[in-house]
Amino acid sequence: MCKEQIFTIFGGTGDLTFRKLIPAFYNMEAFKNKDLCTQIVIIGRRDYTSGEYREMAHRWVEKFARLGYKEEIYEKLAEKMTYYRMDFTDASAYVDLDAFYRGMGDVEHIFYFAVAPRFFEIIVKGLQLVSGAGNGKVVIEKPFGENLLAAASLNATMETFFKQDHIYRIDHYLGKEMVRNIQTIRFANPIFSNVWNARYIDCIQISALEEVGVETRGGYYDHSGALKDMMQNHLFQILTIVAMEQPESAGAEDMHREQMKVLNALHMPEDIKENIVLGQYEGYRGEPAVDADSDTETYAAVRLMIENERWNGMPFYVRTGKKLGKREMQVAVVFKSPVPGVEPDILNIKIQPTEGVYLQFNIKKPGESEEVVQAKMDFCQNCSFINQMNTPAAYERLIGACIRGERSWFSQWDQIETSWKYVDAIREQYHRSGLPVHLYPQGSAGPKAADKLLGDHGHVWFE
Amino acid sequence: MCKEQIFTIFGGTGDLTFRKLIPAFYNMEAFKNKDLCTQIVIIGRRDYTSGEYREMAHRWVEKFARLGYKEEIYEKLAEKMTYYRMDFTDASAYVDLDAFYRGMGDVEHIFYFAVAPRFFEIIVKGLQLVSGAGNGKVVIEKPFGENLLAAASLNATMETFFKQDHIYRIDHYLGKEMVRNIQTIRFANPIFSNVWNARYIDCIQISALEEVGVETRGGYYDHSGALKDMMQNHLFQILTIVAMEQPESAGAEDMHREQMKVLNALHMPEDIKENIVLGQYEGYRGEPAVDADSDTETYAAVRLMIENERWNGMPFYVRTGKKLGKREMQVAVVFKSPVPGVEPDILNIKIQPTEGVYLQFNIKKPGESEEVVQAKMDFCQNCSFINQMNTPAAYERLIGACIRGERSWFSQWDQIETSWKYVDAIREQYHRSGLPVHLYPQGSAGPKAADKLLGDHGHVWFE
Repeated sequence: MCKEQIFTIFGGTGDLTFRKLIPAFYNMEAFKNKDLCTQIVIIGRRDYTSGEYREMAHRWVEKFARLGYKEEIYEKLAEKMTYYRMDFTDASAYVDLDAFYRGMGDVEHIFYFAVAPRFFEIIVKGLQLVSGAGNGKVVIEKPFGENLLAAASLNATMETFFKQDHIYRIDHYLGKEMVRNIQTIRFANPIFSNVWNARYIDCIQISALEEVGVETRGGYYDHSGALKDMMQNHLFQILTIVAMEQPESAGAEDMHREQMKVLNALHMPEDIKENIVLGQYEGYRGEPAVDADSDTETYAAVRLMIENERWNGMPFYVRTGKKLGKREMQVAVVFKSPVPGVEPDILNIKIQPTEGVYLQFNIKKPGESEEVVQAKMDFCQNCSFINQMNTPAAYERLIGACIRGERSWFSQWDQIETSWKYVDAIREQYHRSGLPVHLYPQGSAGPKAADKLLGDHGHVWFE
Repeated sequence: MCKEQIFTIFGGTGDLTFRKLIPAFYNMEAFKNKDLCTQIVIIGRRDYTSGEYREMAHRWVEKFARLGYKEEIYEKLAEKMTYYRMDFTDASAYVDLDAFYRGMGDVEHIFYFAVAPRFFEIIVKGLQLVSGAGNGKVVIEKPFGENLLAAASLNATMETFFKQDHIYRIDHYLGKEMVRNIQTIRFANPIFSNVWNARYIDCIQISALEEVGVETRGGYYDHSGALKDMMQNHLFQILTIVAMEQPESAGAEDMHREQMKVLNALHMPEDIKENIVLGQYEGYRGEPAVDADSDTETYAAVRLMIENERWNGMPFYVRTGKKLGKREMQVAVVFKSPVPGVEPDILNIKIQPTEGVYLQFNIKKPGESEEVVQAKMDFCQNCSFINQMNTPAAYERLIGACIRGERSWFSQWDQIETSWKYVDAIREQYHRSGLPVHLYPQGSAGPKAADKLLGDHGHVWFE
């Protein structure tokens, strides 16, 4: 049995808690996940009893849990949930919180900051009054700050109080099934591992296309943009997993070390025009809470070069954007054509909404013809296992990993800092060079210039 | 337009003609195959008029053509077909045949010897009386003789009269879609071509399993056996295509040269017991025309080593047999496990009855587990193209190639001779060593000893 833990959520009445965290706990309960031998303390400003909170939370579980709602399962979860009313901006309230915790015995703490980053500091200060809190774990989510400076300062605050290896920075893409699968696909298959380099691969494309626009998040997004909101964190995480050398072990340190090597080997492009395209969907400036003159990018496509033995000379194309007509996240590995004029072999790792692997390779066209055509094979991960419901969603996975103390699949500060610096630099250069933020129609595939980014090098986006 | 050709079939009322050749012509006609601008002369001993023969042949087309029978298509084919009655063992009859041909103008000849090999010599002698016959092409099929000596003598007879490169030896497996596809799969895909050697491959298995027994062919088969009837020709052809270096061109000479290099590099095993298993199905000795004491093998499994840079140290397992419970021909490429205990990647080229490619590689099991499981992808060639009927059957393909003068996909004498010598030698050694011909139950997977052949080396037959 694991030691009794208290999982405390600051921001217990917010969207993240209702939509993601409580449903994740419910699913873990449904699967009798052993990690969940823990009490859940939900902290909010509003005036609920635990009973009232449970009643309210149950409706969110019905709506958002991927498993069918069952009263008896929710009951078990509800028993673990205590609502604790406090204003977490009120420093004095933490004395009472400490007393409350003491009543629960000798426990380990996990704090989940499901609140805006501007509150992180005040909570950290408050927790100094809570006995044993500094030895606990803390979970935070992006945005870690509006810019690198703010993020660094925030991080310093966190690291002063919490132990460095007790800070769990959630990147929920790292919880996704097929992101976790990239290493196995790369390293456990000779047909891929032996050709996983610039000698055999023509280019690698990482795409995160969104169908939605900024929705209600215009205020936040307009100060962030696609490069910071998606690329710097999620896509660079995936990039490093795709590009890294095989870590010596499955442990967090070895993996992070290899990921960092990739980030440090990222080449800063001389001619920014040839390597970056930013775009903005038509109508973005009219979105709620968006500046009417905004030149924030809702689309970014970047041509990246990694300067090391494995990848020298081979481009990685990374793109993301909103209002692109579909929701699709994938990594496409495009191999070199062995015969001029013949289609390349393509390995496509599909991350969402479909999870799976698509593989395309060459065969002779049936019949008299010697023409080469493509065999197209599709392995749908979330189709092939009888009970796809056994695949935990990202938050379940990450919460479980945090409880168990597994850090491989969380962002490290040095990763964030390095990729942020890189993205900041290219973004600044882009604007300094007077390059336009290209308008693109809603529902289109993004700016035409992004096609040219590849076309100039004989490549084309894999769709 | 191609030059007018006369396609003459000796043995026009035999099984091969009715079941394979006439239906193939019909299909070629149906597809308006341009190769078929030719007259077809059918030679038989029986007393038919051309009209009667056409009438009879039409019933076979209805039964055996893979395309639906259509009167108007058959009519077009029938117009090209002339029945010519003669006793081809009567030397004097060839004078009249010559006169008959002269009436058809200046033509090129293709002779198809759809008769038993013992008649080849007498036909060749007779054709010496036919003007221009020696410049024609000739098509023959196995068995080319009962033993190497007989085959060599037969071949000498053929080569004295016909030009060496006008002799087309049919190996109908070389007409099969997926056999023709092996080169494309190997050489047009970096994911395969770069790992196609002993460093990355654990073993390659070539299997031709038959459900049927000897049926009505007991008399022939009992003097032949699995090694000669299947392995020496069909399976060794496939072996050489799987193992050869990439030919300089798609031409026949370059391909044959590379195939010969493989045959010449075949290692003669020191310990025959460790490398060959022969079997006989229970009840074989009771089959019609089979010797009651027969020790003819109806099953053979061989562990072969090719001594060259690409294949040193890696075994090829080749097996064939009758009464094995299913009909299945395939090539399985089993890659080395990159991680101990993990299943190998497997590429399986399916030749018949299903045509296609199966690929198995490793992925992480979905869910919390880090367990490795297999993604299994199946590409069914005869499913994926809308009109699978467009895939010509082996005989259509080979007849077309012969008409066009394309020799790549026919057996050469030196291939036959070399593989025959090899097979003769191991068979003789087997019997000289007093090794048993293992009995196996009808419908089983063959002798248990054949599993041990692989098991001793840590391998297992891919099913």
